[in-house]
Amino acid sequence: MEELDAILERVDTLIELEAHAELRELLNDLNISDVAEIINESPKRTLLYFQQLDFQRSLAVFRILDNNIQISLLDQLSPIQVVNILNEMPPDDRTELLSDLPSNIVKEFIKKLNPEERKITLSLLGYPEESVGRLMTPDYIDVEPDWTVEQVLAFIRDYGKSSETIDVIYVTDTNGKLIDDVRIRDFLLVDPKTTKVQDLIDGRYISLHVNDEQRDIIDVFQMNNRVALPVVDDKNVLLGIVTIDDVLWVAEEEYTEDIQKIGGMEALREPYLDVPFRTLIKKRVGWLIVLFLGEMLTASAMAFFETEITKAVVLALFIPLIISSGGNTGSQASSLIIQAMALGEVSLTDWWRVMRREILSGLVLGSVLGLIGFVRVVFWNSVFHSYGAHTLLIASTVGFSLLGVVLWGTLIGSMFPLFLERLGQDPAVSSAPFVATMIDVTGLLIYFGFAMIFLSGVLL
Amino acid sequence: MEELDAILERVDTLIELEAHAELRELLNDLNISDVAEIINESPKRTLLYFQQLDFQRSLAVFRILDNNIQISLLDQLSPIQVVNILNEMPPDDRTELLSDLPSNIVKEFIKKLNPEERKITLSLLGYPEESVGRLMTPDYIDVEPDWTVEQVLAFIRDYGKSSETIDVIYVTDTNGKLIDDVRIRDFLLVDPKTTKVQDLIDGRYISLHVNDEQRDIIDVFQMNNRVALPVVDDKNVLLGIVTIDDVLWVAEEEYTEDIQKIGGMEALREPYLDVPFRTLIKKRVGWLIVLFLGEMLTASAMAFFETEITKAVVLALFIPLIISSGGNTGSQASSLIIQAMALGEVSLTDWWRVMRREILSGLVLGSVLGLIGFVRVVFWNSVFHSYGAHTLLIASTVGFSLLGVVLWGTLIGSMFPLFLERLGQDPAVSSAPFVATMIDVTGLLIYFGFAMIFLSGVLL
Repeated sequence: MEELDAILERVDTLIELEAHAELRELLNDLNISDVAEIINESPKRTLLYFQQLDFQRSLAVFRILDNNIQISLLDQLSPIQVVNILNEMPPDDRTELLSDLPSNIVKEFIKKLNPEERKITLSLLGYPEESVGRLMTPDYIDVEPDWTVEQVLAFIRDYGKSSETIDVIYVTDTNGKLIDDVRIRDFLLVDPKTTKVQDLIDGRYISLHVNDEQRDIIDVFQMNNRVALPVVDDKNVLLGIVTIDDVLWVAEEEYTEDIQKIGGMEALREPYLDVPFRTLIKKRVGWLIVLFLGEMLTASAMAFFETEITKAVVLALFIPLIISSGGNTGSQASSLIIQAMALGEVSLTDWWRVMRREILSGLVLGSVLGLIGFVRVVFWNSVFHSYGAHTLLIASTVGFSLLGVVLWGTLIGSMFPLFLERLGQDPAVSSAPFVATMIDVTGLLIYFGFAMIFLSGVLL
Repeated sequence: MEELDAILERVDTLIELEAHAELRELLNDLNISDVAEIINESPKRTLLYFQQLDFQRSLAVFRILDNNIQISLLDQLSPIQVVNILNEMPPDDRTELLSDLPSNIVKEFIKKLNPEERKITLSLLGYPEESVGRLMTPDYIDVEPDWTVEQVLAFIRDYGKSSETIDVIYVTDTNGKLIDDVRIRDFLLVDPKTTKVQDLIDGRYISLHVNDEQRDIIDVFQMNNRVALPVVDDKNVLLGIVTIDDVLWVAEEEYTEDIQKIGGMEALREPYLDVPFRTLIKKRVGWLIVLFLGEMLTASAMAFFETEITKAVVLALFIPLIISSGGNTGSQASSLIIQAMALGEVSLTDWWRVMRREILSGLVLGSVLGLIGFVRVVFWNSVFHSYGAHTLLIASTVGFSLLGVVLWGTLIGSMFPLFLERLGQDPAVSSAPFVATMIDVTGLLIYFGFAMIFLSGVLL
């Protein structure tokens, strides 16, 4: 990053001096990721920088530019330049770009593609938004089982340039059905003249289905140590491949959505600073209103206990402490379980093991906080004489309420994500704020319940 | 997953029938990921299943077993088997396994390695826990610039088997300094006899430094479309490579830690159901106690306003509603900003843009909730006559307090992660519960402040 600043300064100087040839040389000499950073950092000079690049380099840079910069570039470039770029982009990246644009602009762009590319893009666009079909590229190399390795290597020399990866080669039958995948290393480690493809295959391949959910394949890639996996339809016909670098992006997107949902909002799907203000508010206000309406029940619950509060105002003093302690333990338990579910560490069938663990955790954590609360009340009274003659009873009310509310918070926080999963809902929706709100209302009932037990006939 | 159940049933039947030969055949015929699942699912039969596998397959399966199953297997296998497995594991996986074991057990294991492997493992273990050095493997192929491509291909045939990837080949000078990396495809697309390595290199490579933080390289892999990246030291000497499949695991671990921290606990670093109960409690109770001590300030704040509550018990009714609304908006804003920072969408220098956005968001969100709160009080009174003659003043107190507390929550929630970053701390620590606790105390001050303004001389 230090370096990048130095480069940016140099670029600025060259522009001031109008030294275009040198600027051109500099930009064509840097790593493509540095060039992309430079362009991302200077929205106003996007076009100027971009047009200095050799065509092949400009393609490589375009692929990794921020989405909004890509769109603005497509707007500024001449139609012929746009066509060239779209035609040369790997189909999976192009599909992702197109699906981020308004649909009438997409139609215009697709018209500009050559017939071959248009067919590919359209067929890719036919799959559901979060499906593997949207992620795959049809640029792979497939060979037949009766070819010799020498034939395979010659084929790669002829067609390898348009393939996204040649690290894995696919073996299909004459109907296009997938027979196996073979890593390129296996071809290089044998005698090319005497070995046939069928000698190298063992029929043990992992494939993805075109309708699989993108988030589910992260796991498949982690477990199988492959840089690319083949995508097939119901009839096992090979449609395309998914490469592992795209899976890294999927993982990032999925985790971001989870964190945003756990935080109590709809998934943004765009960088924070790029998302329009109206969208930002829309994605946030919905959940806040739902939570607020739920939280209103606390006002009703409090009204129900108004007489008790009037008789013993001291009870009101500990309300924020008690309901927040329930909320905190609930948030903690729910984030923990949501993430364990996302990683597949915990599934529905484990509910009893989770519940047993969390009841025990709740009892331990609740006892710790309850004890601290009890001591706080007794200690404060011995120093400030705050709570009068019934200090021990008040301390017991606070202590036992904390134990109860923490146990309850842990239980609700851990069970609610599993309950949502059981209903076929997304567990991440049981956000920290949502669980906290549920616990606030019941926390009041627990608190005033213990107050009745300990203080009835004394203060109440 | 349906299939796996069917396989598990078949395995069970074969064991009941004591049909070991058939069991052996079945296990050697399945995908290694299925075999790993079967072993993970049946802790009691781990050894039985594992010993049915051919040696090469057993290595592949061992690599992807759950960590605790790996440890239990190492315990159950004979020393000679352990030595064979450890010696044949890719060094990066072995290092990870060893760093999860207690240090005296590690010493015992390392003694069992052959001298060559022991040197590698020890040198890998010398790097800090979260550094790239821990992730790298020294099993790569490096060639010199004056070799012909034919020599390179012959070299791959001889040494490719012990290399983790041959998808990328590294070019080094006689001092072991990195000159470039070349994708295997580039070697296959040229005439092997007449082309030399130096004809294929352009000196534009991306390398990682051995002391880089693992979490920072996720980004580098995303941007550069490589399946492996070279790792160098200060003198640019090539020490090893990091493969992209390991980066997927790093990403998962980092995101999990973030979610757990946002939920208000220390990172677990082990699957939820595997972590010992004592550890689970230890990782959770620390933060809960800190939050609880912070939350105690609410009791002090409430005591400060005890006279006001005694005069107007109606004020107490809305306390949970108001402080929770601040907490909810604060949790939302902090998760949003923490994640945007983790993705590099927002950095310290953007603080002013973030603040401006969040002040505006807070005003809009606060106005919405404030209005609903105002209407709730007026409406309730018109139906239940709950709040008597001063309903409009009470409604205004509630409404403006909500506006104030939501604005404040949004501001604290969004600025606190940036503040932590500024101090060199991990922003994810500004968890939802932490922000909520900070806002609870100040929320009370805001509420009673507005109560003074609207109700002073009337109810107070």
